[in-house]
Amino acid sequence: MRYQLFYWPTIQGRGEFVRLALEEAGIAYDDVARNRAGMKRMQAILDDERLARPPFAPPFLKAGALLIAQTANILLFLGERHGLAPRDAGARLFTHQLQLTIADLVAEVHDAHHPIASSLYDEDQKREARRRTANLVAQRLPKFLGYFERVLAHNARGWLVGARVSYADLSLFQLVAGLSYAYPRAMTRLARRHPHVMRAAARVAQRPRVAAYLGSPRRIPFSTEGIFRYYPELDR
Amino acid sequence: MRYQLFYWPTIQGRGEFVRLALEEAGIAYDDVARNRAGMKRMQAILDDERLARPPFAPPFLKAGALLIAQTANILLFLGERHGLAPRDAGARLFTHQLQLTIADLVAEVHDAHHPIASSLYDEDQKREARRRTANLVAQRLPKFLGYFERVLAHNARGWLVGARVSYADLSLFQLVAGLSYAYPRAMTRLARRHPHVMRAAARVAQRPRVAAYLGSPRRIPFSTEGIFRYYPELDR
Repeated sequence: MRYQLFYWPTIQGRGEFVRLALEEAGIAYDDVARNRAGMKRMQAILDDERLARPPFAPPFLKAGALLIAQTANILLFLGERHGLAPRDAGARLFTHQLQLTIADLVAEVHDAHHPIASSLYDEDQKREARRRTANLVAQRLPKFLGYFERVLAHNARGWLVGARVSYADLSLFQLVAGLSYAYPRAMTRLARRHPHVMRAAARVAQRPRVAAYLGSPRRIPFSTEGIFRYYPELDR
Repeated sequence: MRYQLFYWPTIQGRGEFVRLALEEAGIAYDDVARNRAGMKRMQAILDDERLARPPFAPPFLKAGALLIAQTANILLFLGERHGLAPRDAGARLFTHQLQLTIADLVAEVHDAHHPIASSLYDEDQKREARRRTANLVAQRLPKFLGYFERVLAHNARGWLVGARVSYADLSLFQLVAGLSYAYPRAMTRLARRHPHVMRAAARVAQRPRVAAYLGSPRRIPFSTEGIFRYYPELDR
């Protein structure tokens, strides 16, 4: 059985958190929508009224007979199966808790450039985006990054939880990478106050499989189409 | 060991999804912040720098030595322990997937009255709230409710997943109750097109323990302080 990942083919988006887990675990997978006729296959699943357990939206993962959606839920599944989460039940719950907290911030970052509606163009909510982004950068980023800094400072192993890298660390890397792309000026300031976060992200980037992935064409570049978007006028 | 739930004492908020699970399972618990000096205890935990696994925000649940945060994560824990989720691993993942999808909509409902920032007053983002709420009601509610309708239509047992009520059904009830409070006009229209959703929510409300809870002073009333807020001018 080969995993099949279904996600929009031209952006990192939420699918990237799953891709990083698959890559770090050294799991062979098809990134279906990036292959020929893949978008059609993805849409066919989304439209398939016969499915008893349909996904609401990409990303979703086909693992044999299972079809699993919701990023954090896919990571819960992969983490357990492929050693990307601690074995202890309490530590495993905490890993998932961290992932859900990262997901909350990811949603806030998305809404900073789409505060009114995902279905409207950026241009039609520019004024609102300026206000929301100012709040994100001034209040929300320090609050979230401060939280992850505090968690990391407790673990001499340099990871968010346990003695080994977990999917939450991989996601923290992606968060830092995305924020550094979208808000380079703000992140230069914030990096100084969050050394553990920056170090954990750097360690993830240096892991052999992750480094190989990041240097490969499988890693889609950041752009102003994804969750993390760079608009100079929003990076104060 | 008696569970201790920590959540803001004057609103239903995200804590309500946990309360409903505890009530349906017939579990004794303390709603700590609603007791004497409880807010102080909650704040002390949030501020406790010695905690290796701190919560980012309420709600969180103290279960013996475990401190579990993030609503969906608490429900994952309770569901497994107290028969509020199916036993089969695939069905359990799907239950969690549904819960995370409900959580996504809950966040969108919150942001509809706070599109710019949670830290600003409603009055300072009224114009933006009108635009975002119009989009929520016209596009997002039909999309999400249509999804749950589709899932329910597949299960002859009338629940979202499996043969028995799960925490996802309890959460769907809370979602419908909240939306009906916040958007009575819109929900009257939407109810007609989503009969399975309305029936599942009604069945949850009629379960003996849930009904007893809803009629008790433990159920905090809806208000314009929570996630679901009724502003007549936003209910078109």
